[in-house]
Parts: sequence; structure tokens; C-alpha cells
Amino acid sequence: MSPLDEPARVARLTAMLDSGLDEWSAVLTNGASLKLAASASARDDCAVLTLPGMDLVVGSDYVRGAGFSMYEHGQMSDYDIGYYLVVANISDVAAMGSLPAGVLVVVRYPQDLPDAAFDDIMRGADEAARRYGTRIIGGDTGTADQLYLSGTALGVSEPGTVLRRSGAQPGDHLFVSGETGIAEAARRYFEHVADGGARLTADVEHALGESWRRPRADVDLGLRLASSGVVTSCQDTSDGLKATINQIAEASGVGFDVEAGNVRISPLVEQVAGVTGRPVEDLVFGGSVDFRLVFTVNGGATTVTDFLGQFSDAIHIGSATAGGEARLLQRDGSASELPGVPWRHV
Amino acid sequence: MSPLDEPARVARLTAMLDSGLDEWSAVLTNGASLKLAASASARDDCAVLTLPGMDLVVGSDYVRGAGFSMYEHGQMSDYDIGYYLVVANISDVAAMGSLPAGVLVVVRYPQDLPDAAFDDIMRGADEAARRYGTRIIGGDTGTADQLYLSGTALGVSEPGTVLRRSGAQPGDHLFVSGETGIAEAARRYFEHVADGGARLTADVEHALGESWRRPRADVDLGLRLASSGVVTSCQDTSDGLKATINQIAEASGVGFDVEAGNVRISPLVEQVAGVTGRPVEDLVFGGSVDFRLVFTVNGGATTVTDFLGQFSDAIHIGSATAGGEARLLQRDGSASELPGVPWRHV
Repeated sequence: MSPLDEPARVARLTAMLDSGLDEWSAVLTNGASLKLAASASARDDCAVLTLPGMDLVVGSDYVRGAGFSMYEHGQMSDYDIGYYLVVANISDVAAMGSLPAGVLVVVRYPQDLPDAAFDDIMRGADEAARRYGTRIIGGDTGTADQLYLSGTALGVSEPGTVLRRSGAQPGDHLFVSGETGIAEAARRYFEHVADGGARLTADVEHALGESWRRPRADVDLGLRLASSGVVTSCQDTSDGLKATINQIAEASGVGFDVEAGNVRISPLVEQVAGVTGRPVEDLVFGGSVDFRLVFTVNGGATTVTDFLGQFSDAIHIGSATAGGEARLLQRDGSASELPGVPWRHV
Repeated sequence: MSPLDEPARVARLTAMLDSGLDEWSAVLTNGASLKLAASASARDDCAVLTLPGMDLVVGSDYVRGAGFSMYEHGQMSDYDIGYYLVVANISDVAAMGSLPAGVLVVVRYPQDLPDAAFDDIMRGADEAARRYGTRIIGGDTGTADQLYLSGTALGVSEPGTVLRRSGAQPGDHLFVSGETGIAEAARRYFEHVADGGARLTADVEHALGESWRRPRADVDLGLRLASSGVVTSCQDTSDGLKATINQIAEASGVGFDVEAGNVRISPLVEQVAGVTGRPVEDLVFGGSVDFRLVFTVNGGATTVTDFLGQFSDAIHIGSATAGGEARLLQRDGSASELPGVPWRHV
């Protein structure tokens, strides 16, 4: 279950939903059973179910239709929001290190939505699923008072290999799978342009728009991480880098020291910071929905150098500590809270 | 995937989503695989996946939050709509003859929703899942511009026992699991009252309201039907009785003769028809979301009498024909189209 906006709500909800959940299972007459390995709590991107011969992960993600800023500013077409809906859901499966195994989409639309627009949304959804080797296998479509989009993605894993948020240990190395902040930079940039602000080049604008039109879920990386045997926790950055690091810290009971000098900054983010006046670090750490993976690697089992030998694209940004908080360390040794504001789902 | 409102949209969608779908599967390194047995098309309540030792069904249902007439007329509380959301989703699993195996709920709410209201929605959802021996295992919660509710239910079946819409043969007996029309009568009645219309007794009003506050999914019946070995098709009446019969007819390539004299009419429906002036048959056959099961029984394998010996609550309402349409037969032998208007999801 994705994090709620209010921690107090999460806590109450988790306590209620989880009570007695360990004992629950669905058992067939032939003895085959389905048991829950990881609950509905806020701790993972997906629930994990133990089935004969495999683990099944399943997660749901709502995507704003009405109120989707990039869509309303004309940077995303109907096709693009269908595509985005499916990638957002598949990213939850990627974060568990699972193989995508079907997506269901709920697409409810205002009665006056043209046929072509509906077809485009579904075509985008279908293409995104195929892009990740899976398919749209169901859902619910029909009218509503506004455009409403949500989805559910399934994934399968070899037994016991699912990546969770909760396994990081002090001394583990902290990685991110790519640059963050681009999606948020794009959103802020096109709002800035809508307000009459100074523009960047057409190439930069295109690249910014593409971060929403063709987001990428790190499915292949997730699968490789799950089979590496040294990854102790993983989550995608669908609430932004700061929120993701904090959630792994909380679920694992560790802290993190993040080295400011190691965090890679996209030139796109720097340029948007330049024209909008928004601090670079707020974009990089704040609520940027880039669908990158943040993960920890067992510090006792492998060195950063050896790990990077196998996973050359990963960016080493810090390490897990015994302290309960995540800190940003500057080159001069000063430490501060991680910058940025998590994505608030509004 | 639930039926779209427009048949043309369904047809286009099905063609696109289903292309090449037979060949798709997710295969793990250990050889365990997940294959699709039934597709995303409009033909079933859930998709069916073939896993080692079991079949998994999965379906999503959107429920109007904003725009939910019974909620807006004060007949349903926040708890009740949470409960309803989960029963609506579990009913799709019941219609496949499967054992509920987890529900995910998407609950997005306006920022000013009080904590107590959110808790009540989730408590209703949790209680409904437990009522059917399953649990809320995930989902997505957070703010949105309006109240949005959707869910996904999983179910498990012994291999090859899942009930589908497509197996009815001419000569099969047609059954429904209970009275229909009550939910629609309730909706029409409380609209009528809101418009200042004459009221029925408090007992009747309570019973009408309960059809929405505590809807029932026919899970136990579905499981027994699936293991009976004589049920050839099944679907729940979440679009109303007429739509359900027509959809089984279309998916199976048969017609149906429905005996008007066999269809059982609830006294609640008769009383609402009396005060609202709405024809009884429009309520019974129209868009009443009663979550009853409509199913066909192999006419060559068993007689109606023998079947009713085992399933005494089932109501025998007609039989499948080679003709391509569903007809209502009166006692005098005259035939007409099935009455009523299917549920339009608005």
C-alpha cells in the first residue's frame, strides 16, 4: 500500500488491517494454498503472496487524471497518460524485484470523452504493458463524473527472492539507479512557462516532457538485483528520493548518511533550477516521481567496487547507519536533514 | 473486465488487448510459470491465470464515491461504502466460483475528509473482507479532488474449475441465486422520497437500505457451483439481470427463454413499484446491482429437480436455446425482449 499522506493514518490503518493477518491463508481442497508473506501495511510497494513454486506480488496505484498537471498543460496526450498509468504500476513490481505478470487498469471517464481519446488512453496502456513484456489482462472501464485512472500490477518471483523495504542493516551501501529530480523539474518548468516564465531550448523541453510521456520502470534492474543475493532492501522513488530513503530507513530500523557529492545531478534539473529559481536539491530529493530504484547492498558481503563491477549504472550515494535518521553529508563534513518535500499526492 | 457502456468500445478494446495474448506468459528461472487462461476481454468478471497447482482469478471494480446516490441521500455511511466497495469486488470472484484470496482497495479522498470518515471507510472495507474469509492486503490511499473508490480482488480455484460466461449450451437450465431488483428499487425509492414522494414503513425502508449497506456476495454458492461439475456458465448481476443474461448469451453463443412466471418477485420490489409507479419488471430485470449469480446447468447431465435437490435456494428461470437472443415468455406463450435498462455506470 502506498504511503498515506498522514503518518497517523498509516499507523492506525496498519494496526487494523494487519491484526491476525499472519494466520490468514486461502487453502484449496487439493491442498494448494496462498499465504500472505507481506502485508497491506505501508512498508512495501506491493503485497507478497506465497503460492506453490512462486511468490506473487500485487500492488495498486492511483494516477490523477483530472488534476494531472502535465496533462493539463498540454505536455501529455491521452495516450501518454495511459502509458504513464501502466508504468507507474509496473514500477511497483520492479521495486520488488519481480517479473511483471499482468496489469489491470481502471479507466473511468466523463460521458463526453471522445471515442478517440478513450482508445488513445487504452492504446498507451497496452503499449506500456507490452514494452515491459506483460499485458493488460483486465480492469474496469466506463463513465464517471471525471477522468479517474488506477491500476493493479501483478508480478512473480522465485520463492523467497522478493525485495522488501525492511532488510537494510547498518554498514550496507546505499544506491540509486539513476538521476532523480527530472520529473519534478519538468512539472515545475511547465507551470513556470504557463505563468509566462522564461523558456529553455526545444531540446530541453522535449527531454523534460519525455520524463512524463515515456517514464521508465527499472524492471530488468530489479530482477537482476533480486537474483544478486546481496541486495537487502529496495523501493522505487515514486514519492521522491527523500521519502524513499526515509521509508527504507523506517522499515529497516536504520539511518542513512547520504554523501551530497555522490548524488548525480541531471543537467536538465540544473537548467530548470536556473530559470525557476527553485533549489537544485529540492528537485533532486523532493517529490520527483522518477521511478528510479533506491536499494541497499550488504556491506559485509560485497564492496562498492565489486558491486559496481556488476551493476555499472548504479550510483553509490551513501551508507546505512545505526542512527535512526537520514542525513545529508557535505564535503566539508557538515550534516543536515535531507532536503526537499515528499510528494503529497495532490 | 466489466462491460463498457458502449459495445463498439468493447469490441475495439478487446481486439487490441487480446492480440497475441494467447502466447504471453511469465516464466521464472525455476520453470514455474504464470499463463493467461482467460483474457482482458469483456467476457468475464475476472481474468484467469494458470499457476502451478491452482488457477488465480483477478478482477477490478470501480465504485462511485462522489455520485453514489444512496450515500448522497444519507442511506449509506462512510463505513457502508467501504463495505460495499469490497463486496462488489469479491462478488466478481464469487462469479468465477473462486475462493477469495485478498483484496486491494484504492481509496482517494478530498483533503478535507475527516480522519473519522477515512477510518470508517477502511473499517467497512476490512470488515467486509473478513466477512468473506479474506483480507485487505494492499491498495493505494491518499488525497484526490474527490472521493474515488476502486478495488481489486484475487481468488484461487483448483485447476480447470473456474466458472466462465462462455460455456452455456442449448438445452442448459438457467438459474438465478435469488431475487433481483431490490437494490434498484431501493435507489429509486430513496430518490422518490428525496423528491417528496409517499413513504413506505420504517421496516421496508430499513430492508431497502440494507441491500446497499450490507450487500452479499454469493461466495459459498459460487464455490459449490464450481465443484458441482454441472455448471456450464456463471456471472454475477452487477449490471442487472437483463444485462447478465444477455452477456452470458453473447459469450456462449446461445439464446435464452426466460419464463416470466418463474422469476421470483420480492415484496420490497412490489411495494416500491406501487409508490413510485415504476414497472416491477423494469426493476427486476433492469440495472439492479444485487450481486446475485446467474448460471447455467448442463441439461444433459442433470435435471432441474435433481439440481434443486442439491441447491435448494436456486431459482430456475428458464433454459438456453439455439437462437441468438434472450426472450421473456409469458404464461400465455407470448414472447418479448427482456424488459429493463442495464446499469449505465452513471
